[in-house]
Amino acid sequence: MTHKRIRIGMVGGGDGAFIGAVHRIATRIDDGYELVAGALSSDPERALASALRLGINAERSYASFTTMAEQEKQREDGIQAVLIVTPNHMHYPVAKAFLEQGIHVICDKPVTKTLDEALTLKELVTKSGAFFALTHNYTGYPLIRHAKHLVDTGILGKLRVIQAEYAQDWLTDKAESTDNKQAQWRTDPEKSGMAGCLGDIGTHVFNLACFISGQKVQSVCADLTAFVSGRRLDDNVHTMLRFDGGAKGMLWSSQVAPGNENGLKIRLYGEKAGIEWSQESPNELWLSVFGEPTQKITRAGHGAGEEANRLSRVPAGHPEGYLEGFANLYLDIGIAIRAIEDGASVDSVQGLIPSIDDGIEGMKFITAVLESSAQNSVWCELNDGVN
Amino acid sequence: MTHKRIRIGMVGGGDGAFIGAVHRIATRIDDGYELVAGALSSDPERALASALRLGINAERSYASFTTMAEQEKQREDGIQAVLIVTPNHMHYPVAKAFLEQGIHVICDKPVTKTLDEALTLKELVTKSGAFFALTHNYTGYPLIRHAKHLVDTGILGKLRVIQAEYAQDWLTDKAESTDNKQAQWRTDPEKSGMAGCLGDIGTHVFNLACFISGQKVQSVCADLTAFVSGRRLDDNVHTMLRFDGGAKGMLWSSQVAPGNENGLKIRLYGEKAGIEWSQESPNELWLSVFGEPTQKITRAGHGAGEEANRLSRVPAGHPEGYLEGFANLYLDIGIAIRAIEDGASVDSVQGLIPSIDDGIEGMKFITAVLESSAQNSVWCELNDGVN
Amino acid sequence: MTHKRIRIGMVGGGDGAFIGAVHRIATRIDDGYELVAGALSSDPERALASALRLGINAERSYASFTTMAEQEKQREDGIQAVLIVTPNHMHYPVAKAFLEQGIHVICDKPVTKTLDEALTLKELVTKSGAFFALTHNYTGYPLIRHAKHLVDTGILGKLRVIQAEYAQDWLTDKAESTDNKQAQWRTDPEKSGMAGCLGDIGTHVFNLACFISGQKVQSVCADLTAFVSGRRLDDNVHTMLRFDGGAKGMLWSSQVAPGNENGLKIRLYGEKAGIEWSQESPNELWLSVFGEPTQKITRAGHGAGEEANRLSRVPAGHPEGYLEGFANLYLDIGIAIRAIEDGASVDSVQGLIPSIDDGIEGMKFITAVLESSAQNSVWCELNDGVN
Amino acid sequence: MTHKRIRIGMVGGGDGAFIGAVHRIATRIDDGYELVAGALSSDPERALASALRLGINAERSYASFTTMAEQEKQREDGIQAVLIVTPNHMHYPVAKAFLEQGIHVICDKPVTKTLDEALTLKELVTKSGAFFALTHNYTGYPLIRHAKHLVDTGILGKLRVIQAEYAQDWLTDKAESTDNKQAQWRTDPEKSGMAGCLGDIGTHVFNLACFISGQKVQSVCADLTAFVSGRRLDDNVHTMLRFDGGAKGMLWSSQVAPGNENGLKIRLYGEKAGIEWSQESPNELWLSVFGEPTQKITRAGHGAGEEANRLSRVPAGHPEGYLEGFANLYLDIGIAIRAIEDGASVDSVQGLIPSIDDGIEGMKFITAVLESSAQNSVWCELNDGVN
Repeated sequence: MTHKRIRIGMVGGGDGAFIGAVHRIATRIDDGYELVAGALSSDPERALASALRLGINAERSYASFTTMAEQEKQREDGIQAVLIVTPNHMHYPVAKAFLEQGIHVICDKPVTKTLDEALTLKELVTKSGAFFALTHNYTGYPLIRHAKHLVDTGILGKLRVIQAEYAQDWLTDKAESTDNKQAQWRTDPEKSGMAGCLGDIGTHVFNLACFISGQKVQSVCADLTAFVSGRRLDDNVHTMLRFDGGAKGMLWSSQVAPGNENGLKIRLYGEKAGIEWSQESPNELWLSVFGEPTQKITRAGHGAGEEANRLSRVPAGHPEGYLEGFANLYLDIGIAIRAIEDGASVDSVQGLIPSIDDGIEGMKFITAVLESSAQNSVWCELNDGVN
Repeated sequence: MTHKRIRIGMVGGGDGAFIGAVHRIATRIDDGYELVAGALSSDPERALASALRLGINAERSYASFTTMAEQEKQREDGIQAVLIVTPNHMHYPVAKAFLEQGIHVICDKPVTKTLDEALTLKELVTKSGAFFALTHNYTGYPLIRHAKHLVDTGILGKLRVIQAEYAQDWLTDKAESTDNKQAQWRTDPEKSGMAGCLGDIGTHVFNLACFISGQKVQSVCADLTAFVSGRRLDDNVHTMLRFDGGAKGMLWSSQVAPGNENGLKIRLYGEKAGIEWSQESPNELWLSVFGEPTQKITRAGHGAGEEANRLSRVPAGHPEGYLEGFANLYLDIGIAIRAIEDGASVDSVQGLIPSIDDGIEGMKFITAVLESSAQNSVWCELNDGVN
Repeated sequence: MTHKRIRIGMVGGGDGAFIGAVHRIATRIDDGYELVAGALSSDPERALASALRLGINAERSYASFTTMAEQEKQREDGIQAVLIVTPNHMHYPVAKAFLEQGIHVICDKPVTKTLDEALTLKELVTKSGAFFALTHNYTGYPLIRHAKHLVDTGILGKLRVIQAEYAQDWLTDKAESTDNKQAQWRTDPEKSGMAGCLGDIGTHVFNLACFISGQKVQSVCADLTAFVSGRRLDDNVHTMLRFDGGAKGMLWSSQVAPGNENGLKIRLYGEKAGIEWSQESPNELWLSVFGEPTQKITRAGHGAGEEANRLSRVPAGHPEGYLEGFANLYLDIGIAIRAIEDGASVDSVQGLIPSIDDGIEGMKFITAVLESSAQNSVWCELNDGVN
Repeated sequence: MTHKRIRIGMVGGGDGAFIGAVHRIATRIDDGYELVAGALSSDPERALASALRLGINAERSYASFTTMAEQEKQREDGIQAVLIVTPNHMHYPVAKAFLEQGIHVICDKPVTKTLDEALTLKELVTKSGAFFALTHNYTGYPLIRHAKHLVDTGILGKLRVIQAEYAQDWLTDKAESTDNKQAQWRTDPEKSGMAGCLGDIGTHVFNLACFISGQKVQSVCADLTAFVSGRRLDDNVHTMLRFDGGAKGMLWSSQVAPGNENGLKIRLYGEKAGIEWSQESPNELWLSVFGEPTQKITRAGHGAGEEANRLSRVPAGHPEGYLEGFANLYLDIGIAIRAIEDGASVDSVQGLIPSIDDGIEGMKFITAVLESSAQNSVWCELNDGVN
């Protein structure tokens, strides 16, 4: 069997951007993709310069994503999928443009700026028949897959408590008043939407809690704060959670917690066992069956099963990290896209790739948390916005 | 200067009890106390057997705590202080009996069964002129003292976020249906009061958050659960906190979280720095000044100051633990009692020994959390009950 | 059964000493001993002052240990055992004086200044009929007992590799040129013997390796260094080990390794499993059965057995430390002394209390390491000196 | 500037091989290379199948590496560098073939089967004018670069002690008797050379100790063992080290230590500070300046400098791992190759890429350790073999 890479284009992600480079590396790690087109910047000259640096032919560097969508559609060797790595407010229009051309969409989170947009987007996805993936990349870590497997197979028993957190410190000072572009757009309601820390990293850990537990969050009771004077969006999120399967939880997300770099941590406790995982030590999962010593399960090591091991590249003890986790998501997306283009079943990755529905859940979460906090922490249901 | 130990008696703590033995060891570690009397059990025979085993003379083994209070008061060599280590519901009557005799009281937490009792107890303390200490023992850990010092001296800057948790797993199953006496009384409203996990360990971490931060909790928004079927008191506590100094926090306390033994952990974040401490690794305090590498401050090691070092017995790297932390509290209580009996000032330990006021705060906390949870997590102020 | 404490005296350990205070705390923790006599300093005034501060009657504060041995022997309430906590060079004469009076001896390590003294001491012990214990305190940690149990019961299979280390940093600079009394005597051949770091802490980890493995070290191949200019004794020990049961090992001991406080760590690997334990986290033992996930066994937690649990005072997750480990050794010594005085068997603690034979092994080790290093690291057998 | 990838070919690394896939991923991560040719297996059919799967054109899949060297040399678009990822015994002949064509060589370690081959290879490298890199990949970890920087700039002061170890457990049982191909060739003297564990992983940690310290090992005193019955090469290495700059060290390497996955750990102690780094937690470097609290320096975090940060792709707290470390080595190799092809200076990466000289050092190390062990651990100098 000869090697065929999936042809992809990118919108956003020009020089100076952060997440665009991450997506590109993730697509290269397992050599399943080929970046052949891009609208890397809204400034045509910067877009072209970035494109050339990335090995994209000049003729396929576009100044406009709509042009890109149309022209790529026309080409025989046109892109099969687009990667959207813009600030949040552009996710919707870009996704729309490519879906209307029937091109698969791989989109960064949060899926849109508003819940309404997300709901409309779902209609577009359905109509298009194209594949839509949302890059909640933490779901790609092998031991997260194993954690989900442990829950799914009943090792934990009925879940009771879920403690989720994602803490950073990079916005402890008012970085948006410096020339820090990441800080600028992420604290700007025009570009980020109504959620700051909540949308940026809160949605990630929310998604992860749902992914592993297999439960949906039913309602939230939240207290948002913008601690830094003059900041326009929240930089600290406190929320209690009630899951539809009966579990209760807490979610803490902060960007003003000195000493935390990317402190995403999740703990789940059931009637029979508990598990604990931390993104900063992603090659370890701690499993405590009640009444037995805690076990350290390692990526590719003794105790991890096939659902984790198929996503490992190097032996246990050789750490894989964030980029490999991201690449795992692209591995599964690749499986899905190839299956779809071959008219085959995507069963093998069913439920493993965050979808438009997960994006909608995330927007419901944002909406409910904002509402709860605005109403002095009354419990708000996640389906409120869907009426 | 010759050595003079403080003469003490104990109520509760007979054979089979847990915390009584802990108090006794704590009083012995630095040789500042002498146990000479006791009402160790309500069963006179068991009381006597326990007393003899502990080296207490038969004549000073009492079947009734009121008799003990009266008779010890009469003796020239009578006890100077009583240690109350009974189940919660007995704290109030026992403390009352000894305070009325002018005997100092060292009482386990939570201070009483109800807030009303605690308020009354304060009046009794005031009237008696005796010293009253509440054994929130975690405040005795040297690095907790250092943490408080770091906050007090402004190293953290204005506090923003406080994350507090205390998780155990020993009540994951319905242990109260077995012959586990600890489980029986701690889940029994008659003996524990209206709070289960909340009163047992939630109050500890609540107290610790206040002790270190120097702030009071103003209001709580709580969600209590009894996960184990048929359990009469909460076994999991989720609550958000608002502090009077502007900080916000979360407190999680659970006794149904498999893999957690005594997972008391506290993290405080201010405008300038953050700190993190965990009871299971008490000889380390992590200090992260924003913009600098995180420092590992060790007990008696480089970076710890006098407020911590005066409570260290062995060099850095030789771990001290729970019993030494408890002993530290007794060290400070001893200083206070000696000062009071000498008519001297207790300034040197002012604010370091949990007092009846801290006990009242704890009862307000319990009351407010129960109320908030009963009202579907409405924010409840801690002073509500005091009107 | 009424409580009867073992009456003890102490030689050395006056004000300013370190290890004397540690022994005293260790004897108090479980209330099994009563300190009633002492020759705490060679200076009578300092001795008396220290004695009074410790609650020893003036008449039983001695200026000379020989007088103490003689006079205590005469008293009906004379001491049953003496604790020797002097610098190394005094161990032998003091032990001799008390053994000749038939008084039990509890002696700090290394047992003597020379191997010859140790061998003679063994004869004295035998002749006296008294009990002799050497305070290799690390053997008292509950999880060290559990480690020994795992080896003894074959969980590890035949042992192959033993990696032992004990690193400190307090002699990184030339502390003996300051007024640091600990540094002065420990680097002085007159008081310490011919071994510096080797005798001070190297013997501890050597003893521990033998204690857990149940094997003797057959030969050593060593490279000693005094890194600090002008230091008269070694401050860094590198040695390879061959055990009589076929295992091979390494032992590193250093007092010039910045960042190490009391970094005693031991790892044993057999045909079927490996274990790892570190003194700075003594409440955890890591067990890796080949082919299975590593288990975290905690003191008093799931996975620890009776041989560990009988030495635990507080529940799992409430850390016990160095002093409790030391107290455990005193617990077992107390059992032995009581049994001997009752004419009963000491079987229950057989092999658990470091003896004069362990002291001799330690001196052989010191002797062999010094000789090996002097001969440019030729392998030297441990029985060389015994001819 | 448009993007130009370096054209590479690979010898070895067909289906089922481990390290070939690692090299390929490492070359892709930063998109600096393009794999266009290969002699992936000595079996032409398997070679072709592997090549096609990797996107190599059939015409550039070679059955013989000599043919490949000759034909690629002829092509205008011929490979610029070859990656040698065969078992050890093939390193020399393959490297020779490509160097004779003036093609750059990137070779796995140990560099050759014997020291003589390594010395001859150096002559070939010199004569060829081509670039030769040895993939001691651990040198590519950002915090290893930072560690080297700390030593180079004197933060540690004069080095005293270096403790190096690399422990695994995968050969605890006799895996070479199963169908484990990795185990088969790595324990076979014909394919591995005279060193087993010593050559496989001992050389890695040896190289790392020299890389960071900037010192050469002058002599070794070693004790090799093959613990598994019937194993033909060592599976456990104990050796003491003396460095030419005055430091002393120990190196432990094992493949029979249950619980160790890839436990490469290195600690360096100088007169002023110590550092500690472990490959399984590669995003943390612990720095202990004597007299100050230990600092946790994180990749891309506060405290890391430019020499580390230029090799980071994602923010601090998003772990990078083994593959990224490997990719960093390829980044620097790419800089060197481009500089050489442009006739420019390679100064910026001077001393950062393991070279043929490092390969020779490794072979001297192997030779000296084998000799020392054969002579019952006599100290052997590393230059012995070069006479």
